[in-house]
Amino acid sequence: MRQKILFTIAYDGGGYAGWQRQKGDWVKTVEGEFVHACEALFRQKTDCVGASRTDSGVHAQGQRATIEVDTKIPVEKMPMALNGFLPEDIAVQAAEAVPETFHCRFDVDRKTYEYRIYQGNYRNPLFYRYSEFIRGDLDILSMQRAADFLIGENDFKAFCAAGTTVKSTVRTIYSLDVVQNGQFAVIRVTGDGFLYNMVRIIAGTLIQVGQQKMEPEQVQEALFLLDRQKAGRTAPPQGLCLKEIQYKNSKKE
Amino acid sequence: MRQKILFTIAYDGGGYAGWQRQKGDWVKTVEGEFVHACEALFRQKTDCVGASRTDSGVHAQGQRATIEVDTKIPVEKMPMALNGFLPEDIAVQAAEAVPETFHCRFDVDRKTYEYRIYQGNYRNPLFYRYSEFIRGDLDILSMQRAADFLIGENDFKAFCAAGTTVKSTVRTIYSLDVVQNGQFAVIRVTGDGFLYNMVRIIAGTLIQVGQQKMEPEQVQEALFLLDRQKAGRTAPPQGLCLKEIQYKNSKKE
Repeated sequence: MRQKILFTIAYDGGGYAGWQRQKGDWVKTVEGEFVHACEALFRQKTDCVGASRTDSGVHAQGQRATIEVDTKIPVEKMPMALNGFLPEDIAVQAAEAVPETFHCRFDVDRKTYEYRIYQGNYRNPLFYRYSEFIRGDLDILSMQRAADFLIGENDFKAFCAAGTTVKSTVRTIYSLDVVQNGQFAVIRVTGDGFLYNMVRIIAGTLIQVGQQKMEPEQVQEALFLLDRQKAGRTAPPQGLCLKEIQYKNSKKE
Repeated sequence: MRQKILFTIAYDGGGYAGWQRQKGDWVKTVEGEFVHACEALFRQKTDCVGASRTDSGVHAQGQRATIEVDTKIPVEKMPMALNGFLPEDIAVQAAEAVPETFHCRFDVDRKTYEYRIYQGNYRNPLFYRYSEFIRGDLDILSMQRAADFLIGENDFKAFCAAGTTVKSTVRTIYSLDVVQNGQFAVIRVTGDGFLYNMVRIIAGTLIQVGQQKMEPEQVQEALFLLDRQKAGRTAPPQGLCLKEIQYKNSKKE
């Protein structure tokens, strides 16, 4: 019986050129590995639709992807079975059957990303894979004040890598919190979608505010002027993790 | 001026054949990299004494090592300077001058190790480097009950890898706690010293108790009978981290 299956996938993106499969599979991608595992388990060609095209080096706890497959393997057995074909740095966390009309990318309601920053006197080898190292303490209150300017429906052209070809650079940020957790600062953002490099530019900009290299008001100014040059740097990928994707409820019934 | 310097070193042991330098440097060791960095910075041959010979794959936040060196570089500048010569997965966290009579290994008062276990339905690629994955929940209370039998001065022959040649297998465990922290169980042990593989055998044994494959009383029995066969398996290295080493106070003045 042919069915559409929605998977939740976690990965350490450190060894991959991002999620999206490249033509010819010349570079190692998470989607490429996932499709290979599906083809090995289900013994058929499978097309895959991923929810988020995470960049090279970016991690995920809650990436989502669908495949359509003709199989008798019960859906609840699929995560364990697929994990047997996947490398250590990729693993399926959940699987569920969804209607034919469900679309993994277009039906997304909101996505949540986290950016982690390790603050210390010296870089720490046990944290470098999953955070950016910043020497000294960040001013968390100023970071939150700057973050507040970005919440809501805005044109985020200033927070988008140059050269993107999307039709609209308007997105909605539902929440954007900066939290101190021991020696880590965590930036947690939920929105209806994100432009290319948008979360990393937001993180890089907020970090510069936390280092008192930028004023919170300059973040508002960059937003209003739609000027990428006025926003901060792009923070490196290893601090970023796609935490969760939520779907419009009606679409999964 | 020739001086003895005590360093605190953190490392991700995943890429190394343990701390201790091997003859001829045929394998990559943490000590080998550290000595190379010292020789590059101080431009002289340096001998190194490490406090703990951590196994291949074991991590450290608080390894200690001394070198003797003739230099004008101020001790407070050394961590940053050495980190410039060290790879990403090793970094000095602190440096201090100690008296000529100080011995990095013999003067240790107590060491603390942590063993981390990730409990989930499926393995998680963001945790595999720094924990052991155990499917399902562990019975933490039984693990603590078993752990309590090991506290104090005991002959730990049953918790020592076969084939060691140490004179005495008597050691003192000051504390041994099993704590649930979200989806992680953490075994934290402090003692005056540990036999070869001792912490990993204690962790493997307590995990088997937590999985109800062993009774807490069997741990006591193994201890009394001095029988390695009665204790549990050796847990894998990636869950283990050397957290801290404390010295006899008088020795560092």
